[in-house]
Amino acid sequence: MCEANAYLLEKDGETNETLLMEAVDKVEPDKDGIRLISIFGEQKFIKGSIESLSLVDHKIYIRQ
Amino acid sequence: MCEANAYLLEKDGETNETLLMEAVDKVEPDKDGIRLISIFGEQKFIKGSIESLSLVDHKIYIRQ
Repeated sequence: MCEANAYLLEKDGETNETLLMEAVDKVEPDKDGIRLISIFGEQKFIKGSIESLSLVDHKIYIRQ
Repeated sequence: MCEANAYLLEKDGETNETLLMEAVDKVEPDKDGIRLISIFGEQKFIKGSIESLSLVDHKIYIRQ
């Protein structure tokens, strides 16, 4: 399976990564943020935008 | 490996998918568009925004 983990990037001096959701399947940017849907059907809506994806590393970075 | 294929969505009556790049590893949204980098190091810059990702299906959809 090729799901990824989604992390929130917070830049306060140094960059911190906070895990938002594991096993993300679908990512749907919206006007106000990003909807994440896991392979288990769990949904989260995050205010922010996609900073970058690294699919081989299974990482989705979201910046608020 | 968990790379994905990137498709451009064109909505002219019906929705068409055009393959932009295979084996995409990194996706980096920018102010004017999206940088795609394949697992082979190939880079493309596409004017547009991310419509959605479906990681389990290995698909990245970009809308112009």
